[in-house]
Amino acid sequence: MYYVGIDVGGMSIKAGIIDENGNILRQQFIVTVPDKPSDEIVEEIAVLIEDIVKEHGLTLGDLSGIGMGFPGSVWDQKGEIVYCCNINLVKVPVVKMLTARLGVKNIKISNDANCAALAETRFGAGMGAENSVMITLGTGLGTGIVVDGKLLTGNRSAGAEGGHMQINFGGPTCGCGKKGHYEAYASATALIEQTKQAMAKHPESLLHEVAKIYGINGKTVFIAAKQGDKVAVATLNRYIKYIGIGLVNFANLFYPEVIIIGGGVSRQGDVLVKPLQRYVSRNVYGSKYNPKIKVVAATLGNEAGIIGAACLAMN
Amino acid sequence: MYYVGIDVGGMSIKAGIIDENGNILRQQFIVTVPDKPSDEIVEEIAVLIEDIVKEHGLTLGDLSGIGMGFPGSVWDQKGEIVYCCNINLVKVPVVKMLTARLGVKNIKISNDANCAALAETRFGAGMGAENSVMITLGTGLGTGIVVDGKLLTGNRSAGAEGGHMQINFGGPTCGCGKKGHYEAYASATALIEQTKQAMAKHPESLLHEVAKIYGINGKTVFIAAKQGDKVAVATLNRYIKYIGIGLVNFANLFYPEVIIIGGGVSRQGDVLVKPLQRYVSRNVYGSKYNPKIKVVAATLGNEAGIIGAACLAMN
Repeated sequence: MYYVGIDVGGMSIKAGIIDENGNILRQQFIVTVPDKPSDEIVEEIAVLIEDIVKEHGLTLGDLSGIGMGFPGSVWDQKGEIVYCCNINLVKVPVVKMLTARLGVKNIKISNDANCAALAETRFGAGMGAENSVMITLGTGLGTGIVVDGKLLTGNRSAGAEGGHMQINFGGPTCGCGKKGHYEAYASATALIEQTKQAMAKHPESLLHEVAKIYGINGKTVFIAAKQGDKVAVATLNRYIKYIGIGLVNFANLFYPEVIIIGGGVSRQGDVLVKPLQRYVSRNVYGSKYNPKIKVVAATLGNEAGIIGAACLAMN
Repeated sequence: MYYVGIDVGGMSIKAGIIDENGNILRQQFIVTVPDKPSDEIVEEIAVLIEDIVKEHGLTLGDLSGIGMGFPGSVWDQKGEIVYCCNINLVKVPVVKMLTARLGVKNIKISNDANCAALAETRFGAGMGAENSVMITLGTGLGTGIVVDGKLLTGNRSAGAEGGHMQINFGGPTCGCGKKGHYEAYASATALIEQTKQAMAKHPESLLHEVAKIYGINGKTVFIAAKQGDKVAVATLNRYIKYIGIGLVNFANLFYPEVIIIGGGVSRQGDVLVKPLQRYVSRNVYGSKYNPKIKVVAATLGNEAGIIGAACLAMN
């Protein structure tokens, strides 16, 4: 069976032909022009789908379905993009438009964090799990939640916004005007901010030397910590605890079989994942009586987007 | 159709004959003897079911199902009580035992907070909703979550423990040894503690007069606030904000149609519910684009237990 998965991002719109086992049979992409009229963007997606299908020697009639992930708020059930971050797609009934344009009946949409969670749960780091939570640590903090094999999205798909969970109401005000949001502590952006603060406070730290060579980014603290710098180790431990606090909150609510860590930071692997595993196992409620919740790093990388989009159409 | 709903508590075990519309046709109870051997407790439940069925002029064969709620950790799918608070029920395969004992096939169990959420969502304050979150403000803080008409309980039903969500990791250590749990801020116990603190700090407050007459309990601050006492108003507003913080966290994850407030404190009605409605509407993520989440007080009171238990068997 053939599915097309589309991953719309601020830089590119990626397409893949995906089989029912989550294998990518072909990939293709176009550059995003974010401020085009929305119907032109949708037409570009339509042409991209036609192209990749043709390139693979198929016709649209051979497709079992098409799935699409967008970076923003999506009303899954209605097939409507509510709004997109940095792309001119507001209140766009994209499923209706593409169904009419392409004649393919099974077209599904969701947001990108949901797609990633679905892909990792079906075919990646969480394979075999029926219940999972995935967090994506990037500029922001995205969450995707799978319950009994299906995405949990809430009424009008407005839920699964775990980055906006308040974990420290006494804490400093975050960018969105609210205090103590998870995202403000645990995103890659937050890590960079924490690294900068540690550097300002500790001119003796190796972080300064590392920053001279590699710049200040999500890796800086990991590199310096690996070399034994105490300030970096302390900063990293605190950052890991921040991530852990949110994971335990999710675990207490969803008690999933697996928690998946995605985003650039997750490529650090065991250095990040092992202490998170310990933190979750120690702090989740009722762990004495209940099975261990596995904490793992995502394995599908950037391809989670197109695979997960295709998964939407596989249900 | 006839169902039996059983609500097991530390003081009493209640039984009800419930019809498919959630109406209670008959009620009966026995006193709980919490430290009896577990098979004797199960036998008492069996006899209670036989009694109420007989009293109503029915036989066990007339039942469409039996549901039971327990105060503790329950593995719904396996039909096993993992442990109970204050009652000697640990690792009890109660569904298997009662199926053998009574010959009724459709027997379901869950914990009491889940039962209450199900009852209020199907037949009470949340009637008509497919997605709801209910919090019960009592000695602790119980949470029940309904997604697409079904209880969300997580792997081995270990989830839906929202009272243990960390909302202020910088906060004081709570009874369970962790810091800043929702329960430690928003339960009735927390309200009483906050009232005591306000009294200690403000000997001039009307709270002292009210306490002399009614004692210090979950109502004290409401009574004094109603009479315009500034300290009481401030204490109440802060308490309401604490409840609101957790509700917004749930709303961002589940985006339900309705949030239901239960437990003794919820009988205060509009004084509690209206400001909570405002807090949730103002603070939930993406409220500009998405439908309003209603906040309501529970309406079924103590009967939610037996009705909700019966609902378990209605699926």
